[in-house]
Formats: sequence, C-alpha cells, structure tokens
Amino acid sequence: MDRETALRIIAENLERIDRVEKVPLEEASGRVLASDAVAAFNVPPFDRCAMDGYGVKAQDTFGATGFNPKRLKVIGEQHAGEVFQGEIGDEECIQVATGSPLPRGADSVVMVEYTKLDGEYVEIQSPVYPNANTSPEGADIKTGDAVVKAGEVLSPAKVGALAALNIQSVEVYERPKVAIYSTGSEIRPLGVDLEPGQIYDVNSYTLSTVISRNGCIPVRKGIVVDDREAIESAVREASGYDLGVFSGGSSVGTRDLFAETVEGLGEVLFHGLQVKPGKPTLFGLVEGTAIFGMPGYPTSCLSNAYVFLAPALRKLAGAPPSEPRTVTARMGKRVVSSSGREQFLTVAVEDGVAYPVFKKSGDITSMANADGYIILPVNLDVVEEGEEVTVILL
Amino acid sequence: MDRETALRIIAENLERIDRVEKVPLEEASGRVLASDAVAAFNVPPFDRCAMDGYGVKAQDTFGATGFNPKRLKVIGEQHAGEVFQGEIGDEECIQVATGSPLPRGADSVVMVEYTKLDGEYVEIQSPVYPNANTSPEGADIKTGDAVVKAGEVLSPAKVGALAALNIQSVEVYERPKVAIYSTGSEIRPLGVDLEPGQIYDVNSYTLSTVISRNGCIPVRKGIVVDDREAIESAVREASGYDLGVFSGGSSVGTRDLFAETVEGLGEVLFHGLQVKPGKPTLFGLVEGTAIFGMPGYPTSCLSNAYVFLAPALRKLAGAPPSEPRTVTARMGKRVVSSSGREQFLTVAVEDGVAYPVFKKSGDITSMANADGYIILPVNLDVVEEGEEVTVILL
Repeated sequence: MDRETALRIIAENLERIDRVEKVPLEEASGRVLASDAVAAFNVPPFDRCAMDGYGVKAQDTFGATGFNPKRLKVIGEQHAGEVFQGEIGDEECIQVATGSPLPRGADSVVMVEYTKLDGEYVEIQSPVYPNANTSPEGADIKTGDAVVKAGEVLSPAKVGALAALNIQSVEVYERPKVAIYSTGSEIRPLGVDLEPGQIYDVNSYTLSTVISRNGCIPVRKGIVVDDREAIESAVREASGYDLGVFSGGSSVGTRDLFAETVEGLGEVLFHGLQVKPGKPTLFGLVEGTAIFGMPGYPTSCLSNAYVFLAPALRKLAGAPPSEPRTVTARMGKRVVSSSGREQFLTVAVEDGVAYPVFKKSGDITSMANADGYIILPVNLDVVEEGEEVTVILL
Repeated sequence: MDRETALRIIAENLERIDRVEKVPLEEASGRVLASDAVAAFNVPPFDRCAMDGYGVKAQDTFGATGFNPKRLKVIGEQHAGEVFQGEIGDEECIQVATGSPLPRGADSVVMVEYTKLDGEYVEIQSPVYPNANTSPEGADIKTGDAVVKAGEVLSPAKVGALAALNIQSVEVYERPKVAIYSTGSEIRPLGVDLEPGQIYDVNSYTLSTVISRNGCIPVRKGIVVDDREAIESAVREASGYDLGVFSGGSSVGTRDLFAETVEGLGEVLFHGLQVKPGKPTLFGLVEGTAIFGMPGYPTSCLSNAYVFLAPALRKLAGAPPSEPRTVTARMGKRVVSSSGREQFLTVAVEDGVAYPVFKKSGDITSMANADGYIILPVNLDVVEEGEEVTVILL
C-alpha cells in the first residue's frame, strides 16, 4: 500500500475525541477550543483616542493650515485611563492621550504633531475629518462576536483576543491519551543492566516525544514480551485509550503474532507499506480504538511516526495538519534508490548542501544526526550530486 | 533603524544563559544540552543479526543456488533476546531472529526467504558474503562517541539516541526567566470590573505565549502605572531576570518616561524602528539584562514580539533560529503601502489566496483572524491583486 492510501485510511478511521475540559487562559495556548468564545462586551469598550493630541469637533478644524491655524480653547487634559468629566463645546478641545476615551462632545483627534500649544489655547495646523484618529467602540470586537470559534487552535493572538474579553478560562478538547508499548523479548527498560543479546528501549522515548509534540499525552506502558498472551492483554488494554502504539516485533514471528492478535480482537486495515524505511507498519481498529504497529528498528519507527502517526494524533486532538518546514538544498552526493518503495532519506544540511546521513534502519543515529529528510518517489532511481532537493526539516 | 540592524544589535547584546539543570530524559525533548552526551558502551552492544534467517559461516554458502542448494545442519534456534550458548562449526548453522546476537562461529545471516527447512537440515539457496545481514557491535554508536553535543536541541531522535545509551537524565541549560510588565494606567487585570476608560491587559497573555513557545519561562509581573517611580522600580526588578519585556506606554509621555528610565539605569540601544506596525519599540540594557519596550497596541506588540523578541529569547535559551513555515499564495486584493516603513501585513489564506485582515494596530483581531503575514519592503508601494506573495505562517 502506498503512502497516500495509508494516510487516507488513517484519516477516515479516526475522529477528534469529544471529551472537553476547562483550562485557565494562561495554559490554553496551543489547545483546541471546544465551544465558541463569544464577546460579552465591545472591544474597545468605548470610543477611543488612537493618537496623542487634542480631542476636537472636526468642523472646528476645517480649513486649518500651518500659516492660518485654527485656535481652540484647551479646557482640560486626559491621560490614558482617565475620563474627562466635562463636555467640549464649539471651538473647545481637551488634550488627550492615546488609549483614553474620546471626550464627550468631540468626534475626532488632531495629532499633537499638527498643533502648537499657546497658553490656554492650541493652534490646530491641519484639519481632521469626523472620526479621524479614533477607534470607535466595538471596532475590534463586537458584543456577540464569536471571536474564536470551536475547533480553532489557540494561537498567541487568539489567546490575546480572549484576554481582551476578560475570558479567564476556556473549554478545550482534552488531549488524547496514547498508550505506548515496546514489544520484543530483547528490549529492556533503561536503568537495568543488560544481559547478552539485550538492548535498551529506544522507541517508547522517541514515540513519547512525537506524541506530545502533536497535542496528545503519551502514556508509557512498558515492554511486552514476544508471547501471544502478553500481546493480547496489551492490545486489549490499549483499546481502552484513545490510541495504542506498539513498536517492535522486529522478527517475522512476533510481527505475525501482533497482526493476528489485532485481527482476532478487531480489524487490520493495512499491514505493509510501500515505504522505506518502515515497510512492516500496521494499522487497525480494536473496540473502536486505532492501533498502530510500528517497526521495531528505531529509525524506521520514528520515520513512520512522523509520516503516519503524527497526522493520526493531530486528527484525534482536533489540530489541523502540520505545515512542514522545508528548505531547498543541493544534493552533496549522488544517491541511488533501488528499493521500488517510496524512500525517506535522512540528510544533514550544511551551507545549503544536503548530505545523506542514513546508515541503517536499526541505527538511531540515522535520524539523530539528521536535520531533515528528502522523499524519493517510488519510481525515482537516482538523485545526482548537485541536484536541487526539498528537505523536510525534522 | 531598520529590521536587520535592530536584529544585529539584539544578537550582539545577548548571550545564552549559562545556568544548567538536570532533567529526566522523559522531559528533555526540546531542551538544549549543556554538556556532551558520551557513549559509555557500543550500540548495538553486540554483533547483531539484522534479518530473520540462519546464522552461518559465509564460506559454507558460496556457490549456493536454487537448483544446487548447500545443505547445512541446524544445531539450534535463537529468538530475539536469547543467546545460543554453543558455537557453530563448519557446515552448521542456527536459526536466528532479527535483533538477536550473531551466534559464535557465524559471520553472516542468510535471509529466511532464501532457505528451505528439511528436517534437521536447511537448504541455502543463495550465497552470502561475510558480515551480510548483520550489524556489527558499535556500528550505530561507538563507546566514547559524543552522540549529542552540548548546545544541540534534543529532537525526538536525539532523545532516542540517549535512551539507547541508558542515559536517564541529562544536563540542559535552564530556561531563561523573562519578566513581563504591562504599563499604562488604563490597563486592568482580568477578573476586575472595568471603570470607564479602562481596558483589559492583553499583551501579558500574548507575550507569555510567545515566550514559552521560544524556550523561555514567562513570569507575569502585572501592571505598572504611568508613574516615574513605579516604572523605575519595575525596570530595576526586571534587571534581576534574564530578560525584561514591557509593553505599553502607548502615549508619548509614558514612552518617554520608560525610555528615560532605561537610559538612566542603563543604556538604550535603539528606540524607534522603521517597521509597521510597531515603530516605538525600544531595546536596552540594564545591569547586563536586556530590556524590551514593546508597543502597547496588541497587534503592534505581538507582531514585534514575533520579529524581534522571539530571536532574542532563542538566543538566551541557546536554541537555533526558528525556520519560518511559509506558504505561497496569490494576493486576493490590491494592497497599497505608503508608510515608508517595512510593513508586516496580516493575511488570512484560503484556497491559496491571501486576503488582508489587518484592521488597526490597536485591534487584536488584526492578528487573531490571521493565518500569517507578508512583509512589504520599505520601498514597495503596491501589491497587485493576483500577485504571488510568500506568507509567513503564524
């Protein structure tokens, strides 16, 4: 199965979770809003002076020039946060600060740059039209506006819009909980001494990181031995989470055991992808919960986590697909691809030149030393040295 | 002052902080390593079978074909995590699983696909060369390798490399602590009732979000009134942090007061930028601590936080500059820029078409409704409808 088909099947079989929780605004950045945030009042809440200067009746300034200024009487002063209690009459004005309310009787502001104070009077050297240099009440947000809509991700600016509305906590979708299992009798948890033939668990760490970076909560469930009963019990447990991710079972026997278990308890939707590294990836459903079987080799596992798991996580969390960050580079070395599969080739980029760093799928340094990867299509055999490539940054 | 000069001055006057802390590997993703992580052992820690099949002496397979297979005696079986205790002799082999150690006496693995089991014997149908289908000890990481170097940001793959080495906690640079102040007598904290002429504090929320997204810890210090003593006391306090960010002082008087205070206690390195929105941005040093004075208007403040504050935060945190995510779009509407300043124009992107959403610098919705922004150079007057633009995504 090719990548597009696999991604379509994943998208079709996952829904955003519908559990919600309330979080304080300070912690809401990046979360997905679960109900429209509606403005309970106008922003700004009053007609506002948008410049430092003088609040005036515009008609009193018509025809003013530097040579022939209009003289207005200054009847008061108003700093930001202050409200002048009087009302200006004809040929009167008050001095105003940016952000302060437009004084009663005034309809516009003359910028201080076009004025000259002269005792109790000010000379206006340039005319203004009504509403000039003001922000009318509600110009930013009107009472009843859904200023951030359900389903939107809270960016810094959207958090700001909620703050402007005195919204101190918001209802957001919960972060989906994702159970992570590493299978394989040779895999051991960090901290123990290794016996001959054993290696440390790498995938639960890399997967946790990808899971939390895509809006979900990783729950590390430990290591599952290569044993039908243990695998079945773990798959059942995983089906109680929003998603289950199993890595490993690098040997044919274990892989078969895992696929048989998912098939027995639910349904396998695909098993085996036309991508390199990471051919043996599995996707299925058990009790309505999506189950991923990722390759055991660290680089294959992580590479497929970026390509297939991350979109699944974002769909569950209600987050939009992530726009990849890319750079254009020239290939620093001729690369031959003869796999007959779509290939993800990890590269380091230095001064605009991309060098392959891929060693083996079993080698975590194939990814750890990479800045990104390039995608070699199924039917592409060779990328020549110097050829332009698009590097998807990690 | 133009953007490039301002960014250069910021970069020249900030250093990565040198305080370090130890964090568990589970929480290390995204952090900046403070000392090289050195491999205490080889990965893989033993010569490993890279395929399911039979561990053999390569010379016993030379010349094997489907029609004329070589017959080897199967003297044992070894699953992943198991170690066969014997040693294979000439024309012997043992069945091996991917990930299991290469048996003693064997130098290569014949993939199971090229074999046929026949009682106690297996027919080898294709020859292998020495080391075929194996991963030698240390092929991924060698004892003494600095597998992640000081100063590198811990990506998922680098976290994985540390896990492979049983490194359960790492020394990372602390996250810089950034004090945030909103100045302006009209600004009120969320939760209180507004008096006429007052508005809620927006900037400390948007700034907090930008600060935490760029590897630092926001410390919200509240609101400072427009008063020389209050501002001076706040600037002194801020100089005890790794960075201080003040927003507001939207009116000329307050801006001057803030600039005078920074000048009095330290040094103003720039004040006033040739960018729109956000002209009145200030950058200075007090007691060695960088102090930013951001515009009070929410969109100006946030826009300049993205452009000027974020690089400063990343420099302090030791994180590399962030590669922007961009999309190419066609302008949906003719835009005229006559500011004589470099202009950041917020846009919403729909079906590849960018529509301006900028209202006023005072309007938070100028950013909250935007997907990104385009940069109009100082000397550009017009972008025609249909013209191709690069949108920097927010």
